[in-house]
Amino acid sequence: MNVTLRGQTRPFRTVSFDARNNCVRLIEQRLLPHEFKLVETKNFRATARAITDMVVRGAGAIGATAAYGLAQGALAFRGRDLKNFSAHAETVYQTLAQARPTAVDPVNAMNDMRREMARGETVAEQQSLALAAAEEFANEDVRHCEAIGRHGGRLIRNGMKILTHCNAGWLAFVDVGTATAPMYAAQKQGKQFHVFCDETRPRSQGATLTAWELAQQNISHQIIADNAAGHLMQRGEIDLVIVGSDRVLGRTGEVTNKIGTYTKAVLAARHKISFYVAIPLSTIDWKLKCGFDIPIEDRHESEVLGAWGVNKRGQREYIRVANPTSGARNPGFDVTPAELITCFITPAGIFKPNELWEQRRRLGYMD
Amino acid sequence: MNVTLRGQTRPFRTVSFDARNNCVRLIEQRLLPHEFKLVETKNFRATARAITDMVVRGAGAIGATAAYGLAQGALAFRGRDLKNFSAHAETVYQTLAQARPTAVDPVNAMNDMRREMARGETVAEQQSLALAAAEEFANEDVRHCEAIGRHGGRLIRNGMKILTHCNAGWLAFVDVGTATAPMYAAQKQGKQFHVFCDETRPRSQGATLTAWELAQQNISHQIIADNAAGHLMQRGEIDLVIVGSDRVLGRTGEVTNKIGTYTKAVLAARHKISFYVAIPLSTIDWKLKCGFDIPIEDRHESEVLGAWGVNKRGQREYIRVANPTSGARNPGFDVTPAELITCFITPAGIFKPNELWEQRRRLGYMD
Repeated sequence: MNVTLRGQTRPFRTVSFDARNNCVRLIEQRLLPHEFKLVETKNFRATARAITDMVVRGAGAIGATAAYGLAQGALAFRGRDLKNFSAHAETVYQTLAQARPTAVDPVNAMNDMRREMARGETVAEQQSLALAAAEEFANEDVRHCEAIGRHGGRLIRNGMKILTHCNAGWLAFVDVGTATAPMYAAQKQGKQFHVFCDETRPRSQGATLTAWELAQQNISHQIIADNAAGHLMQRGEIDLVIVGSDRVLGRTGEVTNKIGTYTKAVLAARHKISFYVAIPLSTIDWKLKCGFDIPIEDRHESEVLGAWGVNKRGQREYIRVANPTSGARNPGFDVTPAELITCFITPAGIFKPNELWEQRRRLGYMD
Repeated sequence: MNVTLRGQTRPFRTVSFDARNNCVRLIEQRLLPHEFKLVETKNFRATARAITDMVVRGAGAIGATAAYGLAQGALAFRGRDLKNFSAHAETVYQTLAQARPTAVDPVNAMNDMRREMARGETVAEQQSLALAAAEEFANEDVRHCEAIGRHGGRLIRNGMKILTHCNAGWLAFVDVGTATAPMYAAQKQGKQFHVFCDETRPRSQGATLTAWELAQQNISHQIIADNAAGHLMQRGEIDLVIVGSDRVLGRTGEVTNKIGTYTKAVLAARHKISFYVAIPLSTIDWKLKCGFDIPIEDRHESEVLGAWGVNKRGQREYIRVANPTSGARNPGFDVTPAELITCFITPAGIFKPNELWEQRRRLGYMD
C-alpha cells in the first residue's frame, strides 16, 4: 500500500525480496507508528531473527518472510553437490520453522516450496525454483487479500461507519490485508465511509498499526477506547463490524481472534449490526472440533500494567500505569461462537458460518 | 480505610477537617497509585481549587469537600455582624459551587448546610452550626456506604470472582465507597474472594485507583484489559459484577456510569451473571424520564491517544501511544438500560430496577 515519506507517496509491501543482493526487505513494525523504516536481512539467520524478534508479525507476513528466507538460504549455497545442498536447505528450513514455533504459516509456506524445489534436478534449478516459489507465495497472499477486498468492498455503502478491532491490515500480510481489504476496495470505488479503530489494549495494535495504515491511505477514521463501541452502537453510530482472525474452525465456524473480539461480536448481535470476519483460506482449521479446545495464550502481565509510546522528548518508552503492587491477568485471544458471526469474507466469496463445512472441498479441506 | 505507609497501617478518610487549624485535609488523588500524599487547603479558595484541579474527585468526596470548604470559609469570618457574615458566606458558597459546575453533590451538600446555619442567631452560632453540618454530611456519607456494605456483603459468597469497572471505591467518597463496600464488608466477615479490576481506559481508574485500594486492604485482585472480561465470563471465571454509578434514573432504572459499563452489563446478561449497581440515594435522579436524554460528555482525545504513568526513572509522564496523525473519539460515560441490571444496592436495601419508582417516597423522592 502507499506510504507517504517526506511528501513523497510510494507503494510498499510489508515484506519483499531483493534478488540482486539476496536480501529480505521488511518494514520494521516495532517502530510504527512513530517511525517508518525498512530493514534488510542479509542472510537466512538474520531473517529468522527478524521473525523471532517481531520486526515482522501477522500470519501472511511471517509466512512470506519465511518463504523468502528459505529462498535466500538456498541461493546463498555455493557448490553443485545436491546432497550437500539438501542438507543445507534442511538447516535453513529448521532455523526458520523454529523462529516462531507456534505459527503455522511459515511451515505451510516452506512445505509448499520444498515440494516445488524437489522438481529441480540440479542445485541451480532448485535454487531458482525456490525463489520463484517464494515470489509466488507472496504474490498469492496479495491476490487473496485483493479478492477479499473485491467481495467485501460491496458490503460497504456510502456514509457507513465501520468498526474494526486490532490489526488485520496490510502490515499483517504482504499487502492489502484482510479486515482492511474491503475498506481499501471501497475507497477505490469512491465510496465515503468512516472507520472506528478499537485501541485494542493491551498491545494497542488498533491505535498504532491500523490507525497508521488508514491515515496513510487517507481513510477517515478515529481511535476509540475499547470501552466505547457499545455506547456508539447504542447511539446508532456503527453500521458494520469487520475483523480478522487467527484461526477459524471450519467445522463450527468459531473464530479465534485478539482478545476483545468476542465482546464486540456480542454487542453487534444485540444491536443487530452485521459482524464480518475477513480471512484467507489458510486461516481455516478443518481438524479441531470445539472452540473451547483452542489453547488461549496467557501473555505477560506487563502488557496490561503499562503502555509503550513516545514521550515528549520523542523517545520510545514503557511507562507503568497501574498500581505498582498489583498484578494482572492477560489472556491474548478469545473465541467467538458462530451464532454471532454474520458471514466470513474469503478470497472464494462470502460464506455464512455453517456454509464453511458444506463448502469444505471448494475451500481447501483435505481428508 | 487502612493505608500502609512505611510498614505502618493507619485509617484515613478521603477528606477530613482539621478544626484547630481550619484546614481541609485531602488525599492527593492525582498522585495515586504511585505516591500517597495528604494535602491541606488553608482557605476556602484553595479548597475550591482542589475540587477544580481534581486533587479530589468522586461524587461523595467532592460533596464533603465543598461542605467542609463552606464551614472553613464561615469559620474564617472575623466579626459579629450577621449581614456581613451572610454576604461572606454567599461568596464562599458561590466559589465552591462553581469549582465543578456540572457536579450536583457540592451544591446539594451546601444547600442542606445553609438551612442548618439559618437556625443560628449569631455569627458564632452559625459558624458552629456550619461545622457541625459539614461533619454530619461527611459522617452520613460514611454511614450510607457502610449500609451499602451491609446489604451488599451478603451477595458475596466464599470463592466468588467479582468484576468491577472504574473506581467507585472509598477514594470517590469519604470512606468505604459504594461498589467496593460489599467487598470490604465480606472481607470483614472472613470471606475469601477474588476481584478482577477492569483497567477502565482511557483514564485507567480501575488499574490505578481501584487496584491501589484493594491492594491496601489486602484483597486478592488482578487487573484485566477492558477487552478481557467477555472471555473470562465465557470460561466461567466471573460470578458477579458490581459497579457504581454517576446518575440513576429513578423512573426507568437506567444507569449512567463510566464508559464501558454498558458493555459489561451486556456481557453479564448473556452469561446470566448478576450485575449489581451500588449507589447512595443521592445518585438517584427522580426527574429525568429517558436515559437517551442524559448528556454524554465527549472528553479530550489526548486521553485515548496516550497514557499517564511512571517511567523507569520514577517520573510521572504522559506518552503518546497512538499513531501521531490520527484523532480519537472519547465519550466519557454510557447508559445501561434497566433490563440488564439485576438489582441496585442502596443504603436502604437491595432493589430491582422497577422497585425504585414503586418505593420512591421511601427512597427520598420529593414531589
